[in-house]
Amino acid sequence: MTSESLAPFVARHIGPGDDDLDHMLETIGASSLDDLIARAVPQTIAQQRPLALDAAPSEAAVLAELREKASRNAVLTSMIGLGYYGTHTPGVIKRNILENPAWYTAYTPYQPEISQGRLEALLNFQTVVTDLTGLATAGSSLLDEATAVAEAMTLMRRVSKAPKDAVLLVDAKVMPQSIAVTQTRATPLGLDVIVADLRGVDSPEALVEAAGGRSVFGVVVQYPAADGQIVAWKKLADAAHEHGALITAATDLLALTLLASPGSWGADVAVGSSQRFGVPMGFGGPHAGFMAVRSGLERNMPGRLVGVSVDADGNQAYRLALQTREQHIRREKATSNICTAQVLLAVMASMYAVYHGPQGLKAIAERVHETARRLATALPKAGLEVEHDTFFDTLAVRAEGRAQSLVDSALEHGVNVWKADDDTVYVSVDETTSEDELDALGAAWGFRAREAAENTAWPKEIERTEEYLTHPVFNSHHSETAMLRYLRRLADRDYALDRGMIPLGSCTMKLNATTEMEAVTWPEFAHLHPFAPANQNEGIRELIADLEGWLCEITGYDDISLQPNAGSQGEFAGLLAIHAYHEANGEGHRNICLIPASAHGTNAASAVMAGLKVVVVKTAASGEVDLDDFKAKLKEHGENLAAIMITYPSTHGVFEDTITEICSLVHEAGGQVYVDGANLNAMVGLAQPGKFGGDVSHLNLHKTFCIPHGGGGPGVGPVAVREHLAPHLPNHPLFAEAGPATGVGPISAAPFGSASILPISWAYVRLMGGEGLTKATQMAVVNANYVAKRLREAYPVLYAGSDGLVAHECILDLRPLTKESGITVDDVAKRLIDYGFHAPTMSFPVAGTLMVEPTESESLEELDRFVDAMLAIRAEIQDVIDGKVAADESALRHAPHTAESLTSDWEHPYERRDAVYPGSTDPRSKYWAPVRRIDGAYGDRNLICSCPAPEAYED
Amino acid sequence: MTSESLAPFVARHIGPGDDDLDHMLETIGASSLDDLIARAVPQTIAQQRPLALDAAPSEAAVLAELREKASRNAVLTSMIGLGYYGTHTPGVIKRNILENPAWYTAYTPYQPEISQGRLEALLNFQTVVTDLTGLATAGSSLLDEATAVAEAMTLMRRVSKAPKDAVLLVDAKVMPQSIAVTQTRATPLGLDVIVADLRGVDSPEALVEAAGGRSVFGVVVQYPAADGQIVAWKKLADAAHEHGALITAATDLLALTLLASPGSWGADVAVGSSQRFGVPMGFGGPHAGFMAVRSGLERNMPGRLVGVSVDADGNQAYRLALQTREQHIRREKATSNICTAQVLLAVMASMYAVYHGPQGLKAIAERVHETARRLATALPKAGLEVEHDTFFDTLAVRAEGRAQSLVDSALEHGVNVWKADDDTVYVSVDETTSEDELDALGAAWGFRAREAAENTAWPKEIERTEEYLTHPVFNSHHSETAMLRYLRRLADRDYALDRGMIPLGSCTMKLNATTEMEAVTWPEFAHLHPFAPANQNEGIRELIADLEGWLCEITGYDDISLQPNAGSQGEFAGLLAIHAYHEANGEGHRNICLIPASAHGTNAASAVMAGLKVVVVKTAASGEVDLDDFKAKLKEHGENLAAIMITYPSTHGVFEDTITEICSLVHEAGGQVYVDGANLNAMVGLAQPGKFGGDVSHLNLHKTFCIPHGGGGPGVGPVAVREHLAPHLPNHPLFAEAGPATGVGPISAAPFGSASILPISWAYVRLMGGEGLTKATQMAVVNANYVAKRLREAYPVLYAGSDGLVAHECILDLRPLTKESGITVDDVAKRLIDYGFHAPTMSFPVAGTLMVEPTESESLEELDRFVDAMLAIRAEIQDVIDGKVAADESALRHAPHTAESLTSDWEHPYERRDAVYPGSTDPRSKYWAPVRRIDGAYGDRNLICSCPAPEAYED
Repeated sequence: MTSESLAPFVARHIGPGDDDLDHMLETIGASSLDDLIARAVPQTIAQQRPLALDAAPSEAAVLAELREKASRNAVLTSMIGLGYYGTHTPGVIKRNILENPAWYTAYTPYQPEISQGRLEALLNFQTVVTDLTGLATAGSSLLDEATAVAEAMTLMRRVSKAPKDAVLLVDAKVMPQSIAVTQTRATPLGLDVIVADLRGVDSPEALVEAAGGRSVFGVVVQYPAADGQIVAWKKLADAAHEHGALITAATDLLALTLLASPGSWGADVAVGSSQRFGVPMGFGGPHAGFMAVRSGLERNMPGRLVGVSVDADGNQAYRLALQTREQHIRREKATSNICTAQVLLAVMASMYAVYHGPQGLKAIAERVHETARRLATALPKAGLEVEHDTFFDTLAVRAEGRAQSLVDSALEHGVNVWKADDDTVYVSVDETTSEDELDALGAAWGFRAREAAENTAWPKEIERTEEYLTHPVFNSHHSETAMLRYLRRLADRDYALDRGMIPLGSCTMKLNATTEMEAVTWPEFAHLHPFAPANQNEGIRELIADLEGWLCEITGYDDISLQPNAGSQGEFAGLLAIHAYHEANGEGHRNICLIPASAHGTNAASAVMAGLKVVVVKTAASGEVDLDDFKAKLKEHGENLAAIMITYPSTHGVFEDTITEICSLVHEAGGQVYVDGANLNAMVGLAQPGKFGGDVSHLNLHKTFCIPHGGGGPGVGPVAVREHLAPHLPNHPLFAEAGPATGVGPISAAPFGSASILPISWAYVRLMGGEGLTKATQMAVVNANYVAKRLREAYPVLYAGSDGLVAHECILDLRPLTKESGITVDDVAKRLIDYGFHAPTMSFPVAGTLMVEPTESESLEELDRFVDAMLAIRAEIQDVIDGKVAADESALRHAPHTAESLTSDWEHPYERRDAVYPGSTDPRSKYWAPVRRIDGAYGDRNLICSCPAPEAYED
Repeated sequence: MTSESLAPFVARHIGPGDDDLDHMLETIGASSLDDLIARAVPQTIAQQRPLALDAAPSEAAVLAELREKASRNAVLTSMIGLGYYGTHTPGVIKRNILENPAWYTAYTPYQPEISQGRLEALLNFQTVVTDLTGLATAGSSLLDEATAVAEAMTLMRRVSKAPKDAVLLVDAKVMPQSIAVTQTRATPLGLDVIVADLRGVDSPEALVEAAGGRSVFGVVVQYPAADGQIVAWKKLADAAHEHGALITAATDLLALTLLASPGSWGADVAVGSSQRFGVPMGFGGPHAGFMAVRSGLERNMPGRLVGVSVDADGNQAYRLALQTREQHIRREKATSNICTAQVLLAVMASMYAVYHGPQGLKAIAERVHETARRLATALPKAGLEVEHDTFFDTLAVRAEGRAQSLVDSALEHGVNVWKADDDTVYVSVDETTSEDELDALGAAWGFRAREAAENTAWPKEIERTEEYLTHPVFNSHHSETAMLRYLRRLADRDYALDRGMIPLGSCTMKLNATTEMEAVTWPEFAHLHPFAPANQNEGIRELIADLEGWLCEITGYDDISLQPNAGSQGEFAGLLAIHAYHEANGEGHRNICLIPASAHGTNAASAVMAGLKVVVVKTAASGEVDLDDFKAKLKEHGENLAAIMITYPSTHGVFEDTITEICSLVHEAGGQVYVDGANLNAMVGLAQPGKFGGDVSHLNLHKTFCIPHGGGGPGVGPVAVREHLAPHLPNHPLFAEAGPATGVGPISAAPFGSASILPISWAYVRLMGGEGLTKATQMAVVNANYVAKRLREAYPVLYAGSDGLVAHECILDLRPLTKESGITVDDVAKRLIDYGFHAPTMSFPVAGTLMVEPTESESLEELDRFVDAMLAIRAEIQDVIDGKVAADESALRHAPHTAESLTSDWEHPYERRDAVYPGSTDPRSKYWAPVRRIDGAYGDRNLICSCPAPEAYED
C-alpha cells in the first residue's frame, strides 16, 4: 500500500507523517510496517482480504454526499410529542458547546482537577433536575428517558421491602417506548411488569387490585401523561407507600416549571429526558435522560453523580462522587451497567436553563401551554373532542373512527401528529410551534387557532408554588455576551483533545475531525422526530444502512443493530441475543457467563442484567487467559454454559495467541463467544472478530469510529452478530424498520438510538476507505509500540505478545517504583498535568499501573513530548528513591500545581519553575489546572450534589 | 417603550437587565431613561419620529428569513476567474477561526501583549507573501487586490524620481476591476493612468512609447495575466528601472508556488489577493489583499506590518512595527488612509498555508494546472482555439463571434465562464473543479476533458526554482489534530470579547451574536462569484437592498452604497461624491476641507486622497469645535470651501450643541457637511445626521452594526448621502446594478464590497427592530454615563455636555496624575491586563488620556468589575504619589505580569499575588498575558517581519 493510493484525508487523520514512520519503526526494531504488523498480530486471526470499502475523493465530496442524503429527509412540523419536542438551541450554546472541540473532545471527568468546567456544568444540570423535580439528589445524566424508567424499576426493586414475587405496576399512559424498554429489561431479571390504568387508584387495596392481586414493589406514572393529561398522583403515591412500594414519576422539565413537583406529592424517584432544553430531536437522540431521588436513595442511583469537595489548598472543587457505586467497581454485584452517559447533552440542557433562567423557562412553558389551550378552545368548534381538561402541551383528540384520516390530512398540510388508536390522535405543541403551523393544522382539520384561549385554570393541587433555579448561576448569564464568557471560562478550565494528547488505555481518544462533525447540526438531521413516518427519513435511514453494511464488512459479522446508545447497552443487547438464541434452541437453562478476571467490570454487570451468572476465569501471570483454569471452568459449567465474554485484543493490550482455541472450545461446549469490541481500534482491517470465532460483539463508535467523547457521552454501542443471532437483535414497537420482528424488544427509547451522531462515523469510514482504516490501525500499533519501546527501560511494560510487541496500548508497571519510592500512580497522573497532559488510565486493568493508548492520531512530536515527560517524571521518582527528596515533599506528591500556588509562600524543596514548567514545558502554551489535588473522600463524607450557595465560594 | 414590546433578542443583546437600569439611573442622577436621553441629546437634533423598522419575532424567524433569501441565490460552478476562485476552506480552519469568537471578536492588536496569537498568525501571513513573491517585506494585509494596486501606484509615485507629470503605465491584461479602482484613485490625485499592451516592451524607449511619449513613474503588470497568459516580465522590469520607474506585479499566490517569483525578475512591489487560500469567494469579499516590497521600500508601505521585538524579560514578542507610518499618526501627511484591513481573512489564508505546507500547496497548484492543461488539450478538438501556450489556471478561448453563445451554453450546463469580448471567453479552473464540472463544460461545448493533458512545459525563465515556506511552522501542523492544537494555542494567548470587556473609545466593541454570524458560512452566500450574472444572486442582492433601505431609515439619508469595504474607503467615497458634486455644479475649484483638530487622522488622509486641502479648525477648551476659529476659517476659505468633516457625537464623546449651527454656516458658504459616522452608536433612533445637517456620512458596520472586528478587519464602511449626492456614489464597471451610471467609479474590487458579511448587519437590524435599536443606543448612553459617574472622582472626565453628561463614551484624564506620579496611560493600560481587561483607547483624541466606550452589550456586573479595577489602579497610583513606592518599582510600571514571572526571584516591593490577582481577580478565571511589556522601539530598530528562525526562540 502506498500513500498515493490513500484518500487525502488519511494524512489528516493520522498523526505521524511518512517521514516519521521510518524513525519510529527503527526505534521499535521493525524493518517495515508490514513486518511490525505481521509480528504483532497472530497469524491465526489475520484477515485474509482487504476491506472492500471505497474512500470518497475528498472531504468536500463526503460533505456533498451527506448533503444529498440530508436532502432526502423531510423536516415536517412535528406535533407528535411522546417525549420528543421541537426546541430552539440558542446559537451561543450551539456554537460554543456543540460545535466547540473544547467541549466535545473532552473525556469523562475521571481527572477532576482538569475537568472543573464540565463538572460545574453538570452540577448545574443536577441542580436543574433537583429543583424542578423537588427531589434531593439528581445524577449527571442517564442515557434516555426509557432506560431511566428501567433503571428506576431496578432501583425500586432494590429498595422496596416488598416480597420477591412483587411486581412493577406501570400506568397505561406512560410513554409506550418506556414501557417497552422496561419490559425488555425486566424479563431477564424475572420481574413482572403489569400495565394498568392507575388513574383513580387511591388506596393500597386498589393498588393491589390494579396489579391483579399481586404485591407491588414499584409504581411508575407519567406526569404529564403520554396522552397529555396531568393527573394529581398524590393519593396513588400515598397508597404505594402504605403498601410498601416506591413510586417513580416520569416527567417533563418544562412542564414542571408550572406544575407541582413530583417530590411535593410524594414521588421517590423522578426520571425523564432533558431533550427539550435546547437539544434537537435528532431522529431520537442523543439526549440526556435524568434521574432524581428523594433523600436516602442517593447511594442507590445508577450512573454518575457530580459532587462538591475541596482541593489540597482547601478551595472548593468538583469531582465525581460516590464512585464506589459504579459498575466498573462493583462488577457482578453492580445494579446497573451504565458507564458513559450523555454529558455533552446534559451540558447543553443545563446551559439552556442558565441562559433562560427561571423566568425565561417559565415564560416558554406558559407560551407553550397557551398555545395548547388555544388549540383546545378551537378544536371542538371543528367537531373534535378534547379528551382531558387538564393538560400542559399535549391534547388527546377524539374522533370516532377518524384518527387515520386526521393523521393523513394533517400530513398533507405538513404536520405530523400521533395516532394513538383508531379513535384518538395526540397533538403536541412546543416552543417552536408557530402561528403558521397552527394555521396549517387548522386548514387540515377545519378550525381557526388564531382566537384566544378560553380562560381555564388548573386545579390548585397541581399548580406549582415551589421556587426553582434561585441560585445565582441561573440568574446572571442572560445576555449573550455574559453567556458566551461563562462558557469560555468553563471551557478554559478543562483539558480536552484540542490542547493535547489524552493517552487513555481504556478509551480511544483519536481525532474527531471537523468534516465528520459538520452534518450533526444540519437541520435535516437535527430536526427529525424519531416516530415520524418512515418516508420522511429515507436519507438518514440510508445512511444508517450504509453504516451497518460497512461495520459488518469491518467486523466480519452478518448483521448489526445501531440502536444501543452506549457500549453498555450494546453488551446488554448482545447477551440478550445469546440468551434468546439458547431459548429458541430449547436450551434456556444455559445461564453461565465466563468472564476473565481482567475484563472491564461492565461485562459482568451486563451479564447479570441479562440474567446470566458470572463465573470468573483466572488470568495467567503472562496476562493472558489462564487456559487451565478456563478449561476447568468449561468442564464444570459446560452444560449450562451460555457464553464467554472476552475482550480482544485483551484489556492488557495484547493480541493473545490463544483466542482461536478458546473460541473453538466454547463452541464445542455449546456456548457462544462474545468478543468485547472496546479494542477494535487495534483490529480494523487486520482481523475480524466475526471471522476468528466471535458470535457477537458490541463496538464503540465513540472509540474506534470517531464520535467524540463529549466529556462523558454521548456514545453509540452497536451490537454486531453472526447470522444465527440476527433474529434476536433489538427492535422497536413504534418503528417496524428498526429491527427484526423476532427481536428481543427495544433496549433504547429511540428506534435507531443516537441517530443524529451517526453521520460522524459514516463520514469517518467514507473519508478513510478500507485502505485508510487499515493504515490507521497499523499506525495505532506503531504509536503504541513506539511509546512502549521508548518507555520500557524506565517503566516495565507489563504485558506483551510473544514477540515482545504490544497491540495498540501498553501497560506501564509502576508497582516496583511505588514500592521503592512511595510514589503512586495517582502522583504520576497528577504530575502529568503539570507537564501538560491528561493522565493515562489508572489502575485498570491492573492496580498500580498506567495504561497508555496513544491512537494513530497523535503525531511523533506529541508522542515524544509525552515520553519525555514520563522520563522526566521517572527521574523525579529516582530522586525520591535516592533520598534526595521525601515522597511527601516531592513535586509529584503536591501535583498538580496551580498558578495561584506560585503566589503563596513557597515551602517546597523544589523551585517554583520546576513545579509548573517541568521538562520542556513551554510557558506560553501552558495549561493551568484551576484547582490542586482534590480530596474525593471529603466530598463523599459531606455529600453536596447541587450548586453550593455563593457564600461557599468565599475563602 | 416597555420591555414587552421589544423583540426577545433585545434582552440578549443589551447587557444590563431592567432591574439593573434603576440602580444605574440612580447612580447617574437621572429620573428615568427618557430623562437621561433628553438631557444628553440636544433638543435641536433630536429625532422626531421613531424608526419604522419591524423586528422579527425571534432569532429562529430571522434565520428562516435568511434561509429563504439564501435559497434564491444559485450557486453554479464558477470558471470566471478574474481574481476570485473556488477554494476548499479546511474544516478545522472554518470551525476554529471563522466560526470561533476567540478569533472573530478580537480587536486590532494595538495591545500586543494580549494579541500574540493573531500577531503570530499575521507574521505567518507575511512570511507566506514574502516567500512566494520573493520580496523582502510584506504587510499584514490590505483591503483587496484592486485597492492594493492603487496603493502600489501611490507608493511608486512617492519613491520614483520621475518628473511630476510622469504617468502610471498599466498592462491591458491587468484585472479590469484593478484598473478601474486605480483610475478612481488616480483622478483626484492628478495622476494619469495609461493602459497599454506591455507584452514585448523590452527597453526604456519602448516603455515611453507605450506611455504615449510620457515619462513613467510606475508600471503595473498581472502575473499571470487576467487572460491567463504567463509573461516573462524581466525585460520590462529592467526597462522600467533603467527609465527610473518602479514595477509592480499583481500576482497569484497559488500560481507562485510553481512560478519564478516577481522578486526574482525584478519587481519592486507585488500585490494580490489571498482569497484562494481557503477564503470563500463570498460574492466578492471580504478577503485579504496583500502587498510585498523589495528591501528599502518597507517604510513606504501602506497598512500594517507585524514585526518581532522583545518583552521586558527579553523574550521574543510580536507587535505592530513602524507605526509612525500609519495614517492616524501622519494625518494630512499620510500617503494612504487604510486603517482596518483584513486580519481575520489573512489569518485564515496563513493557516491554509500552515495546514497544507509547501508540498501541499504545490500539489494543489499542480493539480489545478494539470486540469487547465487537460482543458487546453481538449478544447481545440472541439474547434476552440486556446490563445496562449503558457498559462497556469486560466485559458483565453477564441471563437470568432461566438463568445456569447459559449457563455450561454456553459450556463445551461451550470457553469459560469467570462466573456472577455465578442470573440473570447476566459475559462478558469481551481482546486474545487471536479470531473463532473469538466464534463458539464465538455457537454456544453462538445469536448471530452477526461483525456490526459498533452505534455507541455513552461519556458525555463518562468519556472520556479526558489524554495518557499521552509520555516518549521509550515512543516509541522499537517494533521488535523496538530492544526487544531496550534489554533487553540494561538487563540489562548489572545484577549477577545469572549473573555471580557474591550472598552475602546475609538471602536464600538459590542456583541457579535451567533445568530448574526450564522449565515456567513452558508454555501449560498459563501460560494458566489462577484461577477456572476445578476439573476444568480437575487437573494443576496435583496438582502443588500433591504439593508440599504434600513440604513437610510436609520441615518435619515436618501441613498447609500455598501461597496466601501472599510470606513476609510467610505470616507474616500464620500469625499469623492462631494468633489464630483461641486464639479457637476461648475464649482470644481472648491478644494478646502475643514477638519477639527480633534478628528481622527484618517479624516485628513482621506481628504488628501480625494484631492482636497486640509484646513484644521481649533478645538475649544471645552472640547467642542472652536466656533470663533471655525467662523474665521470659513470666512477665509468660503469661496473654495468644499466640505467640513465633523464627527458626531464628537471624538470627545459629547453631543455638541453647536452642530446645527455649524452645518447651516457651511451650507451657507456653499460647502458640504461630511458627518463621520464612527460614533453612530450614540445616535441610532435618537438623531439622524441626514436630517440635522449632514450631506454625507460613512458608517462602520463593524462598529455600530455588529460585524465583528476579526482582530483588525474585515470592516464595512458604507457611504450614505442626501439625494443631491446620490448620482456620485461608487459604481462598478463589471456589475451595472452596483451603483449609479453617473457614479465616481469603483472604490473596491468587488461590486458590493464585502458582501458575504452583510447578513450580519442585516440580521442585527432585523433582530432588534427600530425600538430595539433605539433602546440599544439609550443603554449605550446609560452605560457610558454610569462608568463616567463612578470614575469621575478618581479620574476627571475630560469633556461632557452642558448637563455634565457624556454621550456613549467618556475620556478619563490621566495627565494630572501622570504629572504627580510619573505613571502614564501606558502603565495604566498594561496594568489593566493584570486585572483581566483590554485597555481603553490610549491618547486619542487627547494625548495622556484614556477613552472608554462600554457599549450597550456590557452588563452592569462587567461595568462594575471594570470600574472597580480602575479605582484599584487609582489607589495604586496614589501609593506612588504618596511616596510609598517609586513609579519605576510599582506594579503599574512592571505590568503586565506573566505567570512565568512568578517563578523568578521576586525583587519587587509588592507581593506576587498583588501582581497577578489584583483587586477581586478570580484566580480560576484569570487571563494570562503570554509576554511582558513589549519594547516596540527595539523591534523598529531591528526590523524583522517574517517568521524568525526557530533558534531565535531559544532563550
